[in-house]
Amino acid sequence: MGLNFEFVTATQIVFGTGTVKKVRQMLEGMGRNILLVTGEKRERAKPLAESLLSGEFEVNYFSVGTEPSAGIISEGVKMARETGCDVVVGLGGGSVIDSAKAIAALVPNKGELLDYLEVIGKGQKLLEKPLPFIAIPTTAGTGAEVTKNAVIHSPEHRVKVSLRSPLMFPDVAVVDPELTVSMPPEITATTGMDALTHLLETFVSNQANPFIDTFCREGMHRVAASLKKAFENGTDLKAREDMSFASMLGGMSLANVKLGAVHGFAGPMGGMFPVPHGAVCATLLPAVMEVNLRAVTQQNQQQTLAKYNEVAQILTGNPEAGATDGIQWAREMVQFLNIPALSAFGLSAADFPVLVEKAKKASSMKGNPVELNDKYLLEILEKSV
Amino acid sequence: MGLNFEFVTATQIVFGTGTVKKVRQMLEGMGRNILLVTGEKRERAKPLAESLLSGEFEVNYFSVGTEPSAGIISEGVKMARETGCDVVVGLGGGSVIDSAKAIAALVPNKGELLDYLEVIGKGQKLLEKPLPFIAIPTTAGTGAEVTKNAVIHSPEHRVKVSLRSPLMFPDVAVVDPELTVSMPPEITATTGMDALTHLLETFVSNQANPFIDTFCREGMHRVAASLKKAFENGTDLKAREDMSFASMLGGMSLANVKLGAVHGFAGPMGGMFPVPHGAVCATLLPAVMEVNLRAVTQQNQQQTLAKYNEVAQILTGNPEAGATDGIQWAREMVQFLNIPALSAFGLSAADFPVLVEKAKKASSMKGNPVELNDKYLLEILEKSV
Repeated sequence: MGLNFEFVTATQIVFGTGTVKKVRQMLEGMGRNILLVTGEKRERAKPLAESLLSGEFEVNYFSVGTEPSAGIISEGVKMARETGCDVVVGLGGGSVIDSAKAIAALVPNKGELLDYLEVIGKGQKLLEKPLPFIAIPTTAGTGAEVTKNAVIHSPEHRVKVSLRSPLMFPDVAVVDPELTVSMPPEITATTGMDALTHLLETFVSNQANPFIDTFCREGMHRVAASLKKAFENGTDLKAREDMSFASMLGGMSLANVKLGAVHGFAGPMGGMFPVPHGAVCATLLPAVMEVNLRAVTQQNQQQTLAKYNEVAQILTGNPEAGATDGIQWAREMVQFLNIPALSAFGLSAADFPVLVEKAKKASSMKGNPVELNDKYLLEILEKSV
Repeated sequence: MGLNFEFVTATQIVFGTGTVKKVRQMLEGMGRNILLVTGEKRERAKPLAESLLSGEFEVNYFSVGTEPSAGIISEGVKMARETGCDVVVGLGGGSVIDSAKAIAALVPNKGELLDYLEVIGKGQKLLEKPLPFIAIPTTAGTGAEVTKNAVIHSPEHRVKVSLRSPLMFPDVAVVDPELTVSMPPEITATTGMDALTHLLETFVSNQANPFIDTFCREGMHRVAASLKKAFENGTDLKAREDMSFASMLGGMSLANVKLGAVHGFAGPMGGMFPVPHGAVCATLLPAVMEVNLRAVTQQNQQQTLAKYNEVAQILTGNPEAGATDGIQWAREMVQFLNIPALSAFGLSAADFPVLVEKAKKASSMKGNPVELNDKYLLEILEKSV
């Protein structure tokens, strides 16, 4: 196989403890009238907002309490247009950053969200360049600060789908690990497993390439070294740094390489049940690894088998480990992090056929190293409930 | 030390054998009237140019026979303006790509090159966005396809300096290793050592960071595996792929992390003597490694020492290797590649004081892991003549 890949990013990354203080300076070249998108609780935004308010900036707050939906986005777009915002800042977890990203994208573009949404919408291309946008994550998982898509929940369609465009990369990602220190352990756990899943699925993806592989390896090393530590002691800044870095690497990876079956299921599952995205990833990951490994072995895909062995070696730290040790590591990690089974969120066997159908249509499923038939897909669900 | 870094690129990368065929399609969204910058011999440009000429594109040729100077750049800018070019394509080695990059940057900006040049010019910021620019390297060394600077030779000042701006990243880098197959062995050797030097200097730089380190490690592995092979057998496409990939990784590294003493000397040396940049790098590298290692040991910089050990392990493939083994590897590689000593280009001890003075002012010198006094700098030259 030749060395062939494409890579794109348009995001300036500013990484490190205390870097959030630089945002004021960055904004000076970008705009004066800010739409500041935050989560429901605005405490984290306070120091930043205050530093901005002391100057010549105008700050319009927009709070996002849940995962972004068409309603939330159109409300934000309306606010940005009415107040004449010329720059968007998203400060929060993945939902907040994705909301801010979608709002920044839609303000200068005609029509509405559904015109541009994939799968359930018209999938039109964005024509106008989005408003300048700075993303500041306060969790370490989605990597949304360096991706070109925003995940939107459509309650009507009972699914999560993406608004996606190469124009949607944030202009600047300010990744300040100190902002993640106050994350509670259960959020640290689920977001951390989301980051790991991004790194692992892109590493074994049928679109994997040696450039993105370097991000995946580095990121998986960091998760293996630090997820437990960050979960047990939220103020361990070294562990938080590792997790923020791993999350960013996962975001850069998924922006360039399609994911796999875990994320294929995660879209429909998150659309149908009130289950945090990271919890879906964590619960499905061991079963997807197991089923993929079997299917890959049957098809004698030597390269992917070697990848699964390498995953195991990175995660366990044992250079002699084989693929099944990696699955075992993932199972134990999910247990250690107390992540509940999917049944805790109301999922049952009756939902499986619909989930399988929807998952097969998901964009991420196209990156899975092997095509999985319905039997395999059902097995994944049965093992994860 | 905390995990702190900044990263920027704005370049879409399309990597792989045959990708040059995609350029026509890329141009469709960018412009119709092309300034095609090539080397003196235009054979390599022929297939591309013909595919363009068969369509609705207008192609204006601009040949660059030597390293870019103020005269060449202003001639190119004049041509682009007079013919109304709306897009620039650079197809060639580092000199060609840097010329094209500088022309694309200056066409929409007022004033002249010297207004914007660092060190010998006014160092003003570019205000207008450059013309759209596609970079297509035909060598594997400079990484200029993913950097934001163009190295300009000023014969009057007897120095090489950079035109540099975050606006200058090429819009697309098309890295097609097949284009490098016809490089003669001596160019393969010097450009390959340039790539290695970028990777090694940024890895031990005082600005090094864990994100760029991943590029450096991957790139050094590829050089260690494939430089000799590409030198001995130019048609070994696997080796060419590795070298093109390593070169690109080196470019991304140097666009984000300052280099070191080798490149500190390379600017003035290339300005004063007709010596290929890669030959300068190759010849100086072992001596700079040796002197740096001694200085770093004296200052007990444990982290940099560990980096030099890791360099040795990567280059030799021996996990037990120590820093001095890496220096030995570099010396043997320079010999193997038949790279002449600097005296072959007219350099003698009489030039050393001027070179030392100029090198101390060079931008790259600021990235050297330790500050080197005149005695150390002289020693590097003495060991490399």
